[in-house]
Amino acid sequence: MNHQEGLTAYIAAFVAELVHAGVKDIVISPGSRSTPIALVMAEHPELNLHIHVDERSAAFFGLGIAKATKKPVAILCTSGTAAANYYPAIIEATISRVPLMVLTADRPHELRDVGAPQAIDQIHLYGHNVKWFVEMSPPEGKEEMIRYARTVCARAAATATRYPAGPVHLNFPLREPLIPNLYEEMFELPERTNGYVDIHDGKLSLSTETIKNLATMLNAEKHGVIICGPIEDAAFTETVVSFAKLLQFPILADPLSQLRSGLHEQELIIDAYDTFLRFEDSKEALKPNVVIRFGAMPVSKALTIFLKENRDVPQIVVDGGSGWRDPLTAATEMVYCDESFLCRDVSKYIEPREEQSSYLEKWISINKHTKMNLSSIRDIPKLSEGKLFHLLADLLPENATLFVGNSMPIRDLDSFFFANKKGIKVMGNRGANGIDGIVSTALGAATVSQPLYLVLGDLTFFHDLNGLLAAKLFKLNVTVLLINNNGGGIFSFLPQAEHPKHFEMLFGTPLELDFRHVIEMYGGSYEKVVDWDHFHHVFAKDLEAKGLRVLEISTDRDTNLSEHRDLWNSVSQEISKVIKSGKYEG
Amino acid sequence: MNHQEGLTAYIAAFVAELVHAGVKDIVISPGSRSTPIALVMAEHPELNLHIHVDERSAAFFGLGIAKATKKPVAILCTSGTAAANYYPAIIEATISRVPLMVLTADRPHELRDVGAPQAIDQIHLYGHNVKWFVEMSPPEGKEEMIRYARTVCARAAATATRYPAGPVHLNFPLREPLIPNLYEEMFELPERTNGYVDIHDGKLSLSTETIKNLATMLNAEKHGVIICGPIEDAAFTETVVSFAKLLQFPILADPLSQLRSGLHEQELIIDAYDTFLRFEDSKEALKPNVVIRFGAMPVSKALTIFLKENRDVPQIVVDGGSGWRDPLTAATEMVYCDESFLCRDVSKYIEPREEQSSYLEKWISINKHTKMNLSSIRDIPKLSEGKLFHLLADLLPENATLFVGNSMPIRDLDSFFFANKKGIKVMGNRGANGIDGIVSTALGAATVSQPLYLVLGDLTFFHDLNGLLAAKLFKLNVTVLLINNNGGGIFSFLPQAEHPKHFEMLFGTPLELDFRHVIEMYGGSYEKVVDWDHFHHVFAKDLEAKGLRVLEISTDRDTNLSEHRDLWNSVSQEISKVIKSGKYEG
Repeated sequence: MNHQEGLTAYIAAFVAELVHAGVKDIVISPGSRSTPIALVMAEHPELNLHIHVDERSAAFFGLGIAKATKKPVAILCTSGTAAANYYPAIIEATISRVPLMVLTADRPHELRDVGAPQAIDQIHLYGHNVKWFVEMSPPEGKEEMIRYARTVCARAAATATRYPAGPVHLNFPLREPLIPNLYEEMFELPERTNGYVDIHDGKLSLSTETIKNLATMLNAEKHGVIICGPIEDAAFTETVVSFAKLLQFPILADPLSQLRSGLHEQELIIDAYDTFLRFEDSKEALKPNVVIRFGAMPVSKALTIFLKENRDVPQIVVDGGSGWRDPLTAATEMVYCDESFLCRDVSKYIEPREEQSSYLEKWISINKHTKMNLSSIRDIPKLSEGKLFHLLADLLPENATLFVGNSMPIRDLDSFFFANKKGIKVMGNRGANGIDGIVSTALGAATVSQPLYLVLGDLTFFHDLNGLLAAKLFKLNVTVLLINNNGGGIFSFLPQAEHPKHFEMLFGTPLELDFRHVIEMYGGSYEKVVDWDHFHHVFAKDLEAKGLRVLEISTDRDTNLSEHRDLWNSVSQEISKVIKSGKYEG
Repeated sequence: MNHQEGLTAYIAAFVAELVHAGVKDIVISPGSRSTPIALVMAEHPELNLHIHVDERSAAFFGLGIAKATKKPVAILCTSGTAAANYYPAIIEATISRVPLMVLTADRPHELRDVGAPQAIDQIHLYGHNVKWFVEMSPPEGKEEMIRYARTVCARAAATATRYPAGPVHLNFPLREPLIPNLYEEMFELPERTNGYVDIHDGKLSLSTETIKNLATMLNAEKHGVIICGPIEDAAFTETVVSFAKLLQFPILADPLSQLRSGLHEQELIIDAYDTFLRFEDSKEALKPNVVIRFGAMPVSKALTIFLKENRDVPQIVVDGGSGWRDPLTAATEMVYCDESFLCRDVSKYIEPREEQSSYLEKWISINKHTKMNLSSIRDIPKLSEGKLFHLLADLLPENATLFVGNSMPIRDLDSFFFANKKGIKVMGNRGANGIDGIVSTALGAATVSQPLYLVLGDLTFFHDLNGLLAAKLFKLNVTVLLINNNGGGIFSFLPQAEHPKHFEMLFGTPLELDFRHVIEMYGGSYEKVVDWDHFHHVFAKDLEAKGLRVLEISTDRDTNLSEHRDLWNSVSQEISKVIKSGKYEG
């Protein structure tokens, strides 16, 4: 077997295993060194190839597909800084637990650290930020090496997928000539049962003793709350709702918990806590004596502070992925168990309770009053960031996906997007909470989740403008609601806003960009919303449209700050009245 | 001293030392965690702050300033993936030896690896790709810690600058509240002589014995060549020219050697080798018996192959920075010595030679004939990539800076941009040869080097479109010559071009973008060149213009390939005739 035959057999075996392991989507950035892998992938009939020139956007695009499909996605690039551009998305994948297979082509050993062109040190390029790194063997066609390539691939896909999911990095040293000998049968694995390994992954489950102990703890307490942070697990939604019902505990549902929208029972869902937990009297009235928390840390800062202030009560943190999701050092029980298993198994030992304890009634009533009062945001005549999110629950079509940017949008979503039956899937990049790569992640998701709405601010949109190329080249359908407050809106809410001297230069950072131009370059349609009537009109029209559509909503950072403050003040007064009256039925 | 006073004193001491160490330019990307450093920097009267939202572009922008000033530049960002976006520029800085001080804000220890927002693992975030990593102490105002902050800063700046220069990474854990107490005297260092250290760096120089031995080697050989790859050292230009004259060796001058343009003597400069070293008879006629090489590996593949084919002769590689710049395993002597010192010191022991040996005459004559024949590219009536570079030597104003993109542009520059007296400084990112960050690096250079011309292809331009924001916000002056061949032109020259099945999808990658839109968004002027007359007209007009100007030259990838091939064939025949005739005077 000559060099090219060996190269082809090795790469083809790897690619065949990739498909066998459930990988369907590959995001490829063009390059020379990766040629054999790209060409072999292009020959496989079951792979979807997405070609994306900017590797930073490409990696986020892959992340978006993986988030939407919950299947590992492979990203492939050539040697050099191309691979370094993947870094932000890889870190996001690690923290938000998304399966990603990072395949980088590299110079072979003899061309490393000797000044060869486009050669960087790719060994452990991503440091601790990947679950597994493998420096692949140089391709060879010997049976042992074919088995090796297949096994590493299967293992890498399983490692990426195994909970907590995350990225793995395989680095391929490739020698010239880089052209494989493509032939029809190259993906056939004749000795298949003998030649690869299927991997079966378990989930964490607790001993009966631990389950009983947890049940005993919960049976002893009536003032309990369940907190669901960002989590993506269809089975969990139903089990946690049943669990809460049995316990008669409210569920504080983060916008990314997938509990705010859907056909599940919503009686116990608390969705306005981000507002009312800002108020001292609410926090006092609602002091829990036990907390059970699922998922990542919730978005709400008010809730975070509430948890911190209640570090005197037992706080049970459940994590099927063995992280340590407790920046508050508030956990008293760190429970490593599949979240659905926990709800199901502990439920067996929960003693029946009377319905609607007065504690639960308080939560439901204060939540209801808060929402009623927050709804006054609908009366704001000017374009308003908060109002936009409030309207979205009404306006979005059923089963839409709502991808939300970081900084202000996710916080406004948390404050103003309330529970509904529409089955709206809410997505975001809440691993590292970056403003980078949001456009591409959303577009990746849009390849499988339709219709998809992306709501984000102007700095976030700017950061990943290059991502829009995918919308053009792949003819994707997406509606972008671009909130343009000409700079970094969130900083107006932070202490530096009180120091005006360098504020606009360092934090406000107005870009003064008319995005219409760039949207037109990418073949999108653009509409600048002038008022709410216009917004309703263009939003309705947009429901029928295809392609990339951007509706820009211009707001003002100072007005936005005062709108939020005024609203919180007025809701605070209303809620105080309710609490003082002691009448919680609403 | 309370938290804020300690924070301020510590950061102010660091920033004061930064200025003392020669840092003038800071590129800041907005964020919350980095607030105290950004605010203190903004107060310093001697710092230029450049605010750049996209950290990837920001880091390349800083790289560009550092390349142009040869002084360390600091880049500052907040915690999270912001810092990961710096990675490509950091790797480029490492390999191309540019001093960069990477300052990242981080969550304090208690908020790490516990699910806190915007917290990633920033310890050794850039792995082996920085010269030095320091996890800074949490800020404190005690005298010991002030001395620590000042010493680390001085040491970091010296480490970044010390040859081979490169990036250092300082990670700052910062606790809330993040607002410093700014006051006028905060940068004063009362116990200055007692409180910091000035760092004095030496350069490598050889023992007299080694120098004599090298001179003996060179005295024994008459068929020698000097090769100057990318190198930036003003002192070197003069010394190497004298050295070559003494030895009567030709200097094969890479376009980034800074030897192709300037007031130095150019008699021995060989600038067309990339063409004639493609031909077997030239290579045979010019076989050397000793090679001395300075700088990074040259761009020319023809020259690289020539060096590889001559591994039977002594090849002396000189490097003042102790790398291992020999992907060919061709070096017989690896000499670690400042390049100028070597030329100066060895010269003392070189025996006088007769002028113009027949070997040297061959180089000069073949070079002259090649250039004469290549000049026929001027007759191509259509817009042509090679012709553009040939014209540039005539058209560029004196002392202009020419920043050139990777892939085809740097290669065409090598082939067609010949020696001249104009003092044109040629810049490029030839560390990792990426197509990323070129716009930003050039714009960073444009803050100090004027007038600046950037020549690059459409994929490279696309990759860093975000970099154009700097041109708008900082009102920079730059002329972009955008060669748009709608995709990756270099791949047409590679073996995959012979496999048309997936070629356009995987390698050609046409983007079909009308860049006019995005240039207008960034307030630039755009001109689509229709023919050469038009080009000359707009280029001349452009000489008087300010701001961002883009002249787009559309070419066709297939035509470009055949133009190059036709030209090489015709030059090859002409050069063969010269060699066969044995008459080298030209």
